[in-house]
Amino acid sequence: MNSEDRATDRLRKQLIDQFKNHVGFADELRYEFDHIWRRIDEHPFLVEMSNGKLPIEKYRIYAVQNYFYFAEWSRVFAGAASRAPTAAETLRILKWLTNTGLEFDSYMAILKNVGVTGDQLLDVTTNSGIVLPSFRAYTDYMYRICSTRTVGEFAACVLPCEWTYSSKDIGGLECALRLATGLADHYGVDRETALNYGNYSNKSTHLELIISLKDAISQEVEKGGQPACERIRDIFRNASDYEYLIWESVYKCSPDDPKVGSNF
Amino acid sequence: MNSEDRATDRLRKQLIDQFKNHVGFADELRYEFDHIWRRIDEHPFLVEMSNGKLPIEKYRIYAVQNYFYFAEWSRVFAGAASRAPTAAETLRILKWLTNTGLEFDSYMAILKNVGVTGDQLLDVTTNSGIVLPSFRAYTDYMYRICSTRTVGEFAACVLPCEWTYSSKDIGGLECALRLATGLADHYGVDRETALNYGNYSNKSTHLELIISLKDAISQEVEKGGQPACERIRDIFRNASDYEYLIWESVYKCSPDDPKVGSNF
Amino acid sequence: MNSEDRATDRLRKQLIDQFKNHVGFADELRYEFDHIWRRIDEHPFLVEMSNGKLPIEKYRIYAVQNYFYFAEWSRVFAGAASRAPTAAETLRILKWLTNTGLEFDSYMAILKNVGVTGDQLLDVTTNSGIVLPSFRAYTDYMYRICSTRTVGEFAACVLPCEWTYSSKDIGGLECALRLATGLADHYGVDRETALNYGNYSNKSTHLELIISLKDAISQEVEKGGQPACERIRDIFRNASDYEYLIWESVYKCSPDDPKVGSNF
Amino acid sequence: MNSEDRATDRLRKQLIDQFKNHVGFADELRYEFDHIWRRIDEHPFLVEMSNGKLPIEKYRIYAVQNYFYFAEWSRVFAGAASRAPTAAETLRILKWLTNTGLEFDSYMAILKNVGVTGDQLLDVTTNSGIVLPSFRAYTDYMYRICSTRTVGEFAACVLPCEWTYSSKDIGGLECALRLATGLADHYGVDRETALNYGNYSNKSTHLELIISLKDAISQEVEKGGQPACERIRDIFRNASDYEYLIWESVYKCSPDDPKVGSNF
Repeated sequence: MNSEDRATDRLRKQLIDQFKNHVGFADELRYEFDHIWRRIDEHPFLVEMSNGKLPIEKYRIYAVQNYFYFAEWSRVFAGAASRAPTAAETLRILKWLTNTGLEFDSYMAILKNVGVTGDQLLDVTTNSGIVLPSFRAYTDYMYRICSTRTVGEFAACVLPCEWTYSSKDIGGLECALRLATGLADHYGVDRETALNYGNYSNKSTHLELIISLKDAISQEVEKGGQPACERIRDIFRNASDYEYLIWESVYKCSPDDPKVGSNF
Repeated sequence: MNSEDRATDRLRKQLIDQFKNHVGFADELRYEFDHIWRRIDEHPFLVEMSNGKLPIEKYRIYAVQNYFYFAEWSRVFAGAASRAPTAAETLRILKWLTNTGLEFDSYMAILKNVGVTGDQLLDVTTNSGIVLPSFRAYTDYMYRICSTRTVGEFAACVLPCEWTYSSKDIGGLECALRLATGLADHYGVDRETALNYGNYSNKSTHLELIISLKDAISQEVEKGGQPACERIRDIFRNASDYEYLIWESVYKCSPDDPKVGSNF
Repeated sequence: MNSEDRATDRLRKQLIDQFKNHVGFADELRYEFDHIWRRIDEHPFLVEMSNGKLPIEKYRIYAVQNYFYFAEWSRVFAGAASRAPTAAETLRILKWLTNTGLEFDSYMAILKNVGVTGDQLLDVTTNSGIVLPSFRAYTDYMYRICSTRTVGEFAACVLPCEWTYSSKDIGGLECALRLATGLADHYGVDRETALNYGNYSNKSTHLELIISLKDAISQEVEKGGQPACERIRDIFRNASDYEYLIWESVYKCSPDDPKVGSNF
Repeated sequence: MNSEDRATDRLRKQLIDQFKNHVGFADELRYEFDHIWRRIDEHPFLVEMSNGKLPIEKYRIYAVQNYFYFAEWSRVFAGAASRAPTAAETLRILKWLTNTGLEFDSYMAILKNVGVTGDQLLDVTTNSGIVLPSFRAYTDYMYRICSTRTVGEFAACVLPCEWTYSSKDIGGLECALRLATGLADHYGVDRETALNYGNYSNKSTHLELIISLKDAISQEVEKGGQPACERIRDIFRNASDYEYLIWESVYKCSPDDPKVGSNF
């Protein structure tokens, strides 16, 4: 086993243990809001992706909107980094951002494969009217949190996204793998390209990120007690709700509806 | 006619003329997005308020959520003021905030009348789980705009709210008056108290505010040309959409539903 | 005794007691950094203002720079208000800003009397090159604190300014009264106008402000313990240092020096 | 010539041409404020570093304060990135931050060599009382600019620092090389380690950064005309003043003075 594999193995065991044994506050929240995560797990978008019944246009809508989301992702991590109370935490958050770059690069490789054009990607980040209200609401929420809250609260805001896309044994819903497998099985995407994306969450970079986000939450509640627990719970629930809303809105969105901006 | 009436009269004539003759860019936007404003005008919440068919619990939900909205309103005006490029504009925005205080005071007088308790008001501003997702999304959007955009763009964000609540002859939908008249006609609220709120938008303080917000938009587009027009149009449309969403969400919200925070 | 006098009397007694008996953490800091406050108290600018030896041009420089400072003052209070964690604290900080308006209005009445022109005031808030580096550094510091810190930490940042201008029995250095008395005694300013400014700090509005700022500090350290004490101490000391630097820089500044922007 | 050398050569030629021929607005500002840059060039700190007369304690003070500055540097670039109007500009600014990492790593290698301890570095980023007022004022200024201004204005704020440390043929003052050469010649620092730092500004990563910052300024003034020129000039001048103040304050600072926080 090489050193990347050893690192991955060690991190994975740690996360499996945390999830199974409700070790940290983030794990408690994972169980408390499992009813929201169930709804994501069973969402028609993901189910139909897996069985090939999803119209490919709906995946394209998701893919284009997700590109906007990635752009905002950089923005909010940068914002949280600039406002972190110590230099160490500024660097920690910039490291989180670097760790999430892994997902972006492999995701971009898929887009050409499914007929998304460069113009569509440019449009969604320059023409606010293209952005679905659900994506706007979610990213405005992330922006609010990164602008006004603590490092731990910011971690609670971005964790549901990262965690739902992670493997099941560590508590995730394997969203990335399900999308990738569906794309390869039913939508003609090159399997290697698809699974390079689908498996990003098994890499050590991603597992380090999940551990670090969960640690930031643990440190926050240790320092801030019950009031901190309440704030973190509230944010984790809202972000989980938004994750559900994302799937629901791209599934319900009609690609031919010109009033895209009003599709709430 | 005393001096308050003369001021009101002059301001009103100016606004009627602007609206009728599409004088400013804000007036052009008013007409461009009239289809969204029609949907607000004809919304069952407002219609049923007027004919007494709205369950009073739905008004209470609106009233409590609106209290949260007012708190956020102060916050975003303060934010825009702190980031204004010149001292003169900082003071201008703080004046806008003072002008909107008129509505808040008279609105508060109604709440006891309809059975809203002090505890409910305290709750909605301290327990984020009580806030409806539509109100969270709208206020997070306002926060984003006040944190990152110009004075004119901020004005475009808050104008739909202020303008829809204004009288019809100046382009409004008379939301405040319709709510007030309905409360007095059908829900047992003391008529004087109700109409003191309902008529706030006819006072010179409010008319000055509308004129100043529209002027800020005109100044923005004069300075920034077509790109500024696009940004302002986008924000005005989004805020108009959010105004519609507010009525829709309080109408559709079930007061007995414990998962209030997930009602999107 | 009328009700304003009764209020003033009560507030004053409370503040005298707090100061004499080191009641709150702010009072402890007042004593800890008394050596910095001594240097302000004995500063040649204030001494020469009192005995008529200060060249009037130096007062004009102070007056013009102070106008810039007032503009920034509104900006940072608005900023702190927008970022306060609760609606109650947003309103509390906006109230602080309203309370400080008392000083501004009476100060403005003096400016014409000493030959400061409207153009000079417009210049200092629109031409950054006119701002003395000391005033830029102090206001940038206030901006940093209002953008990134808590309500109590913000209070610690603005308290030295408000407190040094307050009367001696409550722990102040009577800066406003000394300037006003000097202006009336030696520089031909109408005594009533001068003392209307000089005595602003004896009014109940100002005394309420001082009490509220000191309370915010007490609440902060009660909640945050030793780490909060350290952060508050650091900010109070820096702001006291900046207050000294203000007097030092306007005293040392040469009105004929074209490199005003480089006078550090 | 390998590809890194070819890139460096091309970038260098471009910058030499820009400087010699006053090609961009940044180059015009370089010449307009050459009198401030002369004072930096001839500063006793740099002169005595070169001839070995500088007490090594003064270099240690500079080194420790500079570590604080680097921490703030990441913070303000992250802040500017989070507030950039487009996704492309967010990424551009994050790239600038990555480009400046080159300097930090090689600089850190020197610190052990001159007797700076890990505790001193930890202290200066956690204990605000250790930070010299000049470094606080400069970083608070950078924070203000990154929080409230445009991409081009932010570039004008950080360019003097990066440019003064660059080579003379492109308009710099070779601060890094002079420090490094002095450390190797007179202070016992290993020559290879010292010059690895000293020559960082000759690498393509750094030259790309300078070009990109100057381009951002050119784009800003092209879009914003005379008002943009005034704002950029003001910021470039202030940052150049602060660069001078940095050298002046570390030179004048007495290492044995316990009131370090008050050394203005």
